[in-house]
Amino acid sequence: MPIVHVNVWKGFGEEKAKLVMHNITQVFVDLGIPAMAVEVIVHEIPQSHWGIGGVPASELFGDVSP
Amino acid sequence: MPIVHVNVWKGFGEEKAKLVMHNITQVFVDLGIPAMAVEVIVHEIPQSHWGIGGVPASELFGDVSP
Amino acid sequence: MPIVHVNVWKGFGEEKAKLVMHNITQVFVDLGIPAMAVEVIVHEIPQSHWGIGGVPASELFGDVSP
Amino acid sequence: MPIVHVNVWKGFGEEKAKLVMHNITQVFVDLGIPAMAVEVIVHEIPQSHWGIGGVPASELFGDVSP
Amino acid sequence: MPIVHVNVWKGFGEEKAKLVMHNITQVFVDLGIPAMAVEVIVHEIPQSHWGIGGVPASELFGDVSP
Amino acid sequence: MPIVHVNVWKGFGEEKAKLVMHNITQVFVDLGIPAMAVEVIVHEIPQSHWGIGGVPASELFGDVSP
Repeated sequence: MPIVHVNVWKGFGEEKAKLVMHNITQVFVDLGIPAMAVEVIVHEIPQSHWGIGGVPASELFGDVSP
Repeated sequence: MPIVHVNVWKGFGEEKAKLVMHNITQVFVDLGIPAMAVEVIVHEIPQSHWGIGGVPASELFGDVSP
Repeated sequence: MPIVHVNVWKGFGEEKAKLVMHNITQVFVDLGIPAMAVEVIVHEIPQSHWGIGGVPASELFGDVSP
Repeated sequence: MPIVHVNVWKGFGEEKAKLVMHNITQVFVDLGIPAMAVEVIVHEIPQSHWGIGGVPASELFGDVSP
Repeated sequence: MPIVHVNVWKGFGEEKAKLVMHNITQVFVDLGIPAMAVEVIVHEIPQSHWGIGGVPASELFGDVSP
Repeated sequence: MPIVHVNVWKGFGEEKAKLVMHNITQVFVDLGIPAMAVEVIVHEIPQSHWGIGGVPASELFGDVSP
């Protein structure tokens, strides 16, 4: 039943996405929810399109990895 | 009035997106809602970033078309 | 696979929600996608919290049913 | 064209929602986009269901107004 | 940076929401992301408004707890 | 606290995204909310995947800039 939308910065990548999807699913499995009922979607957003305090993250943080 | 966000796998494509947007709009027209009031947005998500049961769809289903 | 978020006005109700969930699912079944792979979530939003042209729908449309 | 989803804490209220919908619409009008093309939806979320740093906002901030 | 939207059934409750927000935040902390950068929003959706296979979850599962 | 998801057409671009993120943040600052509490995410959607009245925006509007 849970449907989870995760927004992260572009460059997060398949490996971290896989880990996050697995571990978030586990959070619900620990509550007794069947794993196959959990869907997690990871949206990668360019830092230029993610504003914090009105400033693009690309300017706030430069080229740090996501 | 209805605003609909559809999430599908990457590769769904323009043709299927067009069909889905048309047919979902029709669902609301059948309820008496004017077509021009309906907006449908189709988000294509890489299978590597869509987890089912904690596993990326790219691993669960391989290279099936979306 | 498809996950669909539908936003409608508050008062849409269970009966119309049921119809919409069924018919939107059918849109994907017609494309060859298994019905059980489709999840549709209907979010009811108060007209006071839905702005069109910068004006709440509650003011634009008054007490029309959703 | 722009569709905007705003998430705020429960208790934000109709008056602030109206102001926010109007002023966000104006942001796009200033870019030359027709007001009637802009839709803004305000979702009110209980502070108990909004986690910052892993802690519910209701615990972090107590009973401050949203 | 991560912003997470979790959709669960109505009745999930504050206690489970708190646990989920904490544990999902921890998933990102384990990746080296500061806890305070993580926001998790839990949306509770009535089972009557959540369709699986075109049928409301309220009919599929009856009165099971979420 | 506010988390804002903005959906616009592909081609909106970094410059307009930056302006929109800044100005939407200002809408909340004017309400007394600290700028650093506001996050705005801009999603660019291909016009082929945005349906209005059941027709892709790419067909309705042709190659207008977003």
